[in-house]
Amino acid sequence: VDSAIAGSIRRLRARDERERTGRFVLEGVAPFLHACRASVALDRIVWNRLLLRNPEARAFVRSRKREGVPTLHVAPDAFRDLSETARASGVLAVARQRWTALERLDTVRGTVRVAVERIRSAGNLGTILRTAEALGAEGVLFVGGASDPFEPAVIRASMGTVCDLELTRTSRYAFTSWSRARGVRIVGTSPRGERDARDLVSTGPIVVLLGDERVGLSASAMASCTECVRIPIVGRCDSLNVGVAAGIVLHQLLVRRAPRAASGQPRS
Amino acid sequence: VDSAIAGSIRRLRARDERERTGRFVLEGVAPFLHACRASVALDRIVWNRLLLRNPEARAFVRSRKREGVPTLHVAPDAFRDLSETARASGVLAVARQRWTALERLDTVRGTVRVAVERIRSAGNLGTILRTAEALGAEGVLFVGGASDPFEPAVIRASMGTVCDLELTRTSRYAFTSWSRARGVRIVGTSPRGERDARDLVSTGPIVVLLGDERVGLSASAMASCTECVRIPIVGRCDSLNVGVAAGIVLHQLLVRRAPRAASGQPRS
Repeated sequence: VDSAIAGSIRRLRARDERERTGRFVLEGVAPFLHACRASVALDRIVWNRLLLRNPEARAFVRSRKREGVPTLHVAPDAFRDLSETARASGVLAVARQRWTALERLDTVRGTVRVAVERIRSAGNLGTILRTAEALGAEGVLFVGGASDPFEPAVIRASMGTVCDLELTRTSRYAFTSWSRARGVRIVGTSPRGERDARDLVSTGPIVVLLGDERVGLSASAMASCTECVRIPIVGRCDSLNVGVAAGIVLHQLLVRRAPRAASGQPRS
Repeated sequence: VDSAIAGSIRRLRARDERERTGRFVLEGVAPFLHACRASVALDRIVWNRLLLRNPEARAFVRSRKREGVPTLHVAPDAFRDLSETARASGVLAVARQRWTALERLDTVRGTVRVAVERIRSAGNLGTILRTAEALGAEGVLFVGGASDPFEPAVIRASMGTVCDLELTRTSRYAFTSWSRARGVRIVGTSPRGERDARDLVSTGPIVVLLGDERVGLSASAMASCTECVRIPIVGRCDSLNVGVAAGIVLHQLLVRRAPRAASGQPRS
């Protein structure tokens, strides 16, 4: 691989380079498929046809190349050299970050979004993104600068859903002002929440605010909530993993949107 | 640290040594507290008073020592040398594994258990244990020999709840025979499940059977299920993380057991 290209890809592993350029690197079949299906703009594709077996991904490589995306076919070893994952999947791409400004978010319909301040583990943040997307949330807000959804480990754990969600970066102040001006409910999740999550009713636009893994929601984050729910715990362990808690609350809020299939697909 | 003691602790990182001896090593404040509160039998404690700040954990060290558990106070560096975690917490212990035989499991009351065959990620398995315990499931069954709850990374991710749950090891054949003989419902979770998880009713003893992260439930595992539920997915991501899926299904089954507090504890 041309050393300038390899260098530019490697530099994007650092967050400041991602922020400076507005680009990120995605790697692997699932993230590549999600990016292509969601029409994320790609600056470059690097791939190897022996490693990349997935037919849909191969078809996207061909069609993106036809559309003019610089596409580099490299030897398996050269690919592995660039790859950050345990098993080289045969495709990576430099892509443009897509952010939606706070003011442009739809607050008219009964939208459901997730907001995070600082999630410490990339695996947890990726799981939160994946869960939000799968269950039908519209987007994820990043309040403050602590967490970056375009970190490679987050993208992997998100299964590529980082490409499907409306992502918004905001400050705590702007977030609180926006929610008040637009009548958005901010629902905190905390073991100390005053209301049981099973009583949560999904009316109006809602943002579910998730706390840090170790200390939960800070006092000032709590103060920005219009209400705070808890998931009842009966065991000796006094809390849930933040991704699991997000899943339970989002399922509660969003399941009404899922069609009730008269009969499921056949088992196989 | 005496090299024989250090060696015996290090050897327990390997699964075959854990199985041969029926012992395991737990490290850190949360696992140590859970083990002591659950009266897990300890063979040995190694600790350092500068590193271990938690007052309840320090009190347990003293009381276990009084009760005759060999207790070794070591220098911070010696402790770090033995430690497997990023930040040495100041306490580790050699403990006895506790397993409950399949035949001894209570199937009279409406018990809820989780069963796993092969969960690939230690983080996911630990999260499943933590979630099961926090939401009030009685125990976890390990069908076949693929997963070990006493692996250090699993214990850490479980926050120590591995000590609180009834754990059972069984074969697929014995599991299926037992469930039929005792009238235990085995509820599989799969994107192809025929019934919506929100229609799951918690009558009778139930085991929730979780599939592997990549391929889900195998055909033969599916065949052992008395029913199979799906969590409705509306996004482009076609599945949930196994720990999140477990959380949603267990919350659905177990939340009726949680008392509805008239008003929660005060926010703080």
